[in-house]
Amino acid sequence: MTISHLRFGDKPIRSPYYINKADFVACHNPSYITKGFPIVRDVKPGGVFMINCQWDLAELEHHLDAASKRYIAKNNIQLYTINAIDLAIQVGMGKRTNTILQSAFFTLAKVMPQEDAIAYMKDAATKSYLKKGQDVVDCNHRAIDAGATAFVKIDVPAAWATAEDKPDETVYEGKPEVVKMVKDILVPVDKMDGDSLPVSAFTDYVDGQFELGAAAYEKRGVAVTVPEWDAAKCIQCNNCAYVCPHATIRPFALTEAEVAAAPAAAKIVPVKAGKGKGVYQYTMAVSPLDCMGCGVCVGVCPTKAITMKPQESQLEQQEVFNYCVNKTEEKKDMQDLTVKGSQFKKPLLEFSGSCAGCAETSYARLVTQLFGDRMYISNATGCSSIWGGPGATSPYTVNSEGHGPAWANSLFEDNAEHGLGMHVAQKVIRESLKAKTEKLIEQPQTRPELKEAAQKWLDTYSDGEANKAATKAYIAALMANISLIDETIGFFSSDAAKEMFGADVAAEKLAHAQEVKANGGEFCDCSACSLVKEILDQKEYLSKKSVWIFGGDGWAYDIGFGGVDHVLASNEDVNIFVFDTEVYSNTGGQASKASNIGQVAQFAAAGKETKKKSLAEIAMSYGYIYVAQVAMGANPAQTIKAISEAEAYNGPSLIIGYAPCEMHSIKGGMIHCQEEMKKAVDCGYWNMFRFNPAAEKKFTLDSKEPKGGYQEFLMNEARYSRLTREFPERAGTLFARNEKAAMERYEHLKKLIDLYAD
Amino acid sequence: MTISHLRFGDKPIRSPYYINKADFVACHNPSYITKGFPIVRDVKPGGVFMINCQWDLAELEHHLDAASKRYIAKNNIQLYTINAIDLAIQVGMGKRTNTILQSAFFTLAKVMPQEDAIAYMKDAATKSYLKKGQDVVDCNHRAIDAGATAFVKIDVPAAWATAEDKPDETVYEGKPEVVKMVKDILVPVDKMDGDSLPVSAFTDYVDGQFELGAAAYEKRGVAVTVPEWDAAKCIQCNNCAYVCPHATIRPFALTEAEVAAAPAAAKIVPVKAGKGKGVYQYTMAVSPLDCMGCGVCVGVCPTKAITMKPQESQLEQQEVFNYCVNKTEEKKDMQDLTVKGSQFKKPLLEFSGSCAGCAETSYARLVTQLFGDRMYISNATGCSSIWGGPGATSPYTVNSEGHGPAWANSLFEDNAEHGLGMHVAQKVIRESLKAKTEKLIEQPQTRPELKEAAQKWLDTYSDGEANKAATKAYIAALMANISLIDETIGFFSSDAAKEMFGADVAAEKLAHAQEVKANGGEFCDCSACSLVKEILDQKEYLSKKSVWIFGGDGWAYDIGFGGVDHVLASNEDVNIFVFDTEVYSNTGGQASKASNIGQVAQFAAAGKETKKKSLAEIAMSYGYIYVAQVAMGANPAQTIKAISEAEAYNGPSLIIGYAPCEMHSIKGGMIHCQEEMKKAVDCGYWNMFRFNPAAEKKFTLDSKEPKGGYQEFLMNEARYSRLTREFPERAGTLFARNEKAAMERYEHLKKLIDLYAD
Repeated sequence: MTISHLRFGDKPIRSPYYINKADFVACHNPSYITKGFPIVRDVKPGGVFMINCQWDLAELEHHLDAASKRYIAKNNIQLYTINAIDLAIQVGMGKRTNTILQSAFFTLAKVMPQEDAIAYMKDAATKSYLKKGQDVVDCNHRAIDAGATAFVKIDVPAAWATAEDKPDETVYEGKPEVVKMVKDILVPVDKMDGDSLPVSAFTDYVDGQFELGAAAYEKRGVAVTVPEWDAAKCIQCNNCAYVCPHATIRPFALTEAEVAAAPAAAKIVPVKAGKGKGVYQYTMAVSPLDCMGCGVCVGVCPTKAITMKPQESQLEQQEVFNYCVNKTEEKKDMQDLTVKGSQFKKPLLEFSGSCAGCAETSYARLVTQLFGDRMYISNATGCSSIWGGPGATSPYTVNSEGHGPAWANSLFEDNAEHGLGMHVAQKVIRESLKAKTEKLIEQPQTRPELKEAAQKWLDTYSDGEANKAATKAYIAALMANISLIDETIGFFSSDAAKEMFGADVAAEKLAHAQEVKANGGEFCDCSACSLVKEILDQKEYLSKKSVWIFGGDGWAYDIGFGGVDHVLASNEDVNIFVFDTEVYSNTGGQASKASNIGQVAQFAAAGKETKKKSLAEIAMSYGYIYVAQVAMGANPAQTIKAISEAEAYNGPSLIIGYAPCEMHSIKGGMIHCQEEMKKAVDCGYWNMFRFNPAAEKKFTLDSKEPKGGYQEFLMNEARYSRLTREFPERAGTLFARNEKAAMERYEHLKKLIDLYAD
Repeated sequence: MTISHLRFGDKPIRSPYYINKADFVACHNPSYITKGFPIVRDVKPGGVFMINCQWDLAELEHHLDAASKRYIAKNNIQLYTINAIDLAIQVGMGKRTNTILQSAFFTLAKVMPQEDAIAYMKDAATKSYLKKGQDVVDCNHRAIDAGATAFVKIDVPAAWATAEDKPDETVYEGKPEVVKMVKDILVPVDKMDGDSLPVSAFTDYVDGQFELGAAAYEKRGVAVTVPEWDAAKCIQCNNCAYVCPHATIRPFALTEAEVAAAPAAAKIVPVKAGKGKGVYQYTMAVSPLDCMGCGVCVGVCPTKAITMKPQESQLEQQEVFNYCVNKTEEKKDMQDLTVKGSQFKKPLLEFSGSCAGCAETSYARLVTQLFGDRMYISNATGCSSIWGGPGATSPYTVNSEGHGPAWANSLFEDNAEHGLGMHVAQKVIRESLKAKTEKLIEQPQTRPELKEAAQKWLDTYSDGEANKAATKAYIAALMANISLIDETIGFFSSDAAKEMFGADVAAEKLAHAQEVKANGGEFCDCSACSLVKEILDQKEYLSKKSVWIFGGDGWAYDIGFGGVDHVLASNEDVNIFVFDTEVYSNTGGQASKASNIGQVAQFAAAGKETKKKSLAEIAMSYGYIYVAQVAMGANPAQTIKAISEAEAYNGPSLIIGYAPCEMHSIKGGMIHCQEEMKKAVDCGYWNMFRFNPAAEKKFTLDSKEPKGGYQEFLMNEARYSRLTREFPERAGTLFARNEKAAMERYEHLKKLIDLYAD
């Protein structure tokens, strides 16, 4: 949505500011009226408000919200409608309504004599469009003439002054804190009314912490077409879910009971092969209102089991999706570190505002599926901080136990350091908990069950997955040991306790705890109890965390590189994921050191001169850093392998993920995002490899020999091909150099196999 | 020199400030009186001034300057002397006068009752020294008793009130601007009176530009012993000059006429071998008053032709040194890019304030000998910005034509970028001069001689040395071509013109130009003349510059690394020299990423955990960056070769020079600086290599296989050995890891030979 604030004066007006007492406001898109945006509020009393729509008065009455009606009636607003939509088609302008609306503006706003305005507009149109042909000029001239008189004055009904607001009947389900935030912040912001929120609306978030999971409440419904799943054709590989940038297509394994309770529209078939066959039923649920319509899922489906259909036709699938997400259990036995198995894990990144087809969110979503429930994320400035952190609309979310990524964004230039700080802070606390646990085991009064649980926790200290379960058991044992009474009552009321002890035992213990409390029971002051209390006070730090530092190439290769290098060199257990779009995407399309020879970008309009920096090799030079380059669309299994190895490696890790981007202007659009990755790898433009200091064979080259088609690959993306139009000779030279550098790089990588052989 | 500002009060005094109205001031070192430091000025009228000296009144009268005498007499200052020097010896304290002087202070300053003060002092002395033995305690107690009464009140002669300043008879020779700056700024600063300079004293330097070459006027005379050269033993290898950090020992090749005019003290022998044999006489001149007495020259002399002698015994050599530097010609035919030949070039870095034995200045001095006359230096914060840029005392200087390095320092974190800016600015101007020159050649009225000179300049555009001469000739031809009359007169009056055209022709042309001027002659307005004028207006940018970016490892490996990487990646023709001391030297001794395993530093008191970063390999990963590691003391020829190759390479270059430092606490001190480099290379602690993208064989490993003695090397430096005392077990582990990493690194480097074979 674009808002233009336009001021006129006899002298140049140099100070920019927003106008909220306008003589004239026009709303060019009727959907802004139906969405209830408070546009008319910026018209001053007696001013003009013009709505572009196809509505008559009755329809206008229906669509206009009560607050706007009251404002119009009480402030003597001169209301006009104009049907520029049909008019544009009539005069031959198709969907282009702007010229008509501009002309109407000049008539109604009266900033200059109408004849002058029309003459100026026609002159400008002639200058702008003559090179496209006289017919285009003529069209524009007709639009100008038509627009000057096409508006209709509406007699505002007196009743509007007392129009009454319709009660908001939306029911929001979920955690009360999230629902409150959605109602108080997200809904007004979505209505373009965020600026009018008082400071007091934010008192629950004064430290900058917002609730996770709010993006699920947005239901933007922006996709024209959304996937329709054909259960019969589907081979249940889950590739579609694996690549989905927005987590809007997800497989579910269902029990018979869950199948029975499913909405009627659900398409459910037996699990066809492998794990869960004969045990579970299978469905691929789609969220039409969250889907961005990129179609990437269609491209990766090996059996054409997905087709894009108009959103309206799929709306009943929303209920199915909501049911699967909210009312069914995750099936742990279906989950593993394969492409397929990973997709039975709940994505803890969903429905973000990234572009349709974005590769970044596909990578990030996958990481959250693997480690999101024990994950800290430090995010660099850039696209990932925008889709990752829009204040009250967090796309990061929690699992059924309430665990999800803790996310923060500091600065472009210190993100790696910021992430290291997150890691070091929790590490220091956790190490003190380790020391306390060791001491607790030594206390004679510590019960054997607790000693055992504590020892198990110590034994799995550095193993993320194993420590997760051990921590759960350890906390339970600590809670069982003590009479920290409210904590104990809380715990034995929880599902976790029921799972741990069985419902009966938990109920028994709960009853006992409640009795102790009634008698004024307290912690006893023995050394073991004190340690137990201290450990429980910091129990959120007990489990091994998975610290991730996210950012783009502008951050990792350029602005934040000093920090990336310093943090990697520190030999601490943090994981860096670079979304490599080879360009500053969010920041304005400038070339970064990840950009390649001949690539056109801001400040590199004649094509970049130097080759892409080898960030991976720089990190490899330390010897103790896990390093990988991945391209999900080229080799999904290698991607998940690299991510798993990086996380498991007890030291610093760097993964560089090739991320095609809107800015690359791939032919046919971002629907081809994942295929483009494959093409990039096949021709040798991008290389996949893994350097694992913990492995016997440190360096593994996962890319095969380039297959040719390099120049065709470049020409498939306008970030390169446009150079052939503007500087054809230079383009030839640079693209040849680009290919040569890529071929040399592959040869060089092959040599690294031997270099790192021992 | 340390100044303690001490205040007493009934309540704690929290705001720190300097005292300049003191009740009591003591001068503990008589040399501060003979140097004329204005110490007494800070005593308030009626206050006490005490001088520690062995002087009687007559001697005191002799040494005290007139201004101090007048201040004492006019302000009723109570003057005391105390001979703590002899007293300390008598009571058994040797050179330690502080306890005596402290006791005298408490008696005279009367901040507390004398008995209390004595009791407190004795208590403190007992506590401090008892562990060293009762005799040390007794000595201190005797000193306290003695000091309390040892001072002598001086009856100030009334005549002091009208004491007259002796006229300053110092004669300063040289460029008038430098002499003015020396008199106005440097002399007061050197007298510890810089704070009293008015702002108006700096009006000539308001843009931060100071004259080069002022350090030569300091003549600090701080060395106790200085080198004495034995002409008979000397084989004229010039190694001593090559390593000298302060450029205070220099070889000269002299003509017979120069020999004849030399001071009597000069030791002159024939050139013994090679270039200049039979042509020139040879001397090795020493500057006793500039020498820091490090003795590094002694260590590298292969024939023991240098011995350290008391400074006083060598003072007559100062005249010889001054004569050779200022009154003899550089012999271009003796100069080349060898260790020996390079030392016949004038160092354009001399007499800096770096530590005695400093390796950094040895490297930097050598670079200025090779390229200083066309050099831009951007300097990072750190030691090199301190010894390199002390305001009005620049150690960078100029050659006989007035050319020397242009030096500036920006910030720790942006030095590389700052240097790139210097380069890009001059490159853009120079490219415009190139375009103008090409246009000038095309003009029909351009004279053939000018065309030829212009073409020569174009042909040598990218070759620093060749372009230097071509530029000189081009400027001469431009000047000869025009009637820009004052410039022309200036030029034909210059030595350069005489050299270029012969004295007769120059005189003829000068006369002609003066005649044109007398007749009101001007530039003609033809296209050629206009181009000539425009080119001459920017003639300082014509010659190819040699841009250097200097800094330490704290800058290059850590704080400025992001910029270092970015600038190197830019593929611009700049040269980076890293003085690698493996520690933040000037900044406070913190560990940097250049520090090594087990090295003790601030914030790494238990020895650094991670190995040294391979900055060189990181740079090599780009493929188009010249990279070298050097160690002057291990292989002086490799050092000069690397520096020459780096400068000649028409792209970015990085040289990392191993630089032993005071902070390493090498056994025996910095006299062993150069030998320590050799030991480091021999045992494999440091590796020398060169990576030249322009060479057929890109990677050359200049270090031989490690010879053993690795642990002995580490134990020779307290930065390592102290860990064995504090954490003996950990020290063993870390030092073994350090050695293992070094051996693996050497094996790795050997593999790079093949990796970069094609």
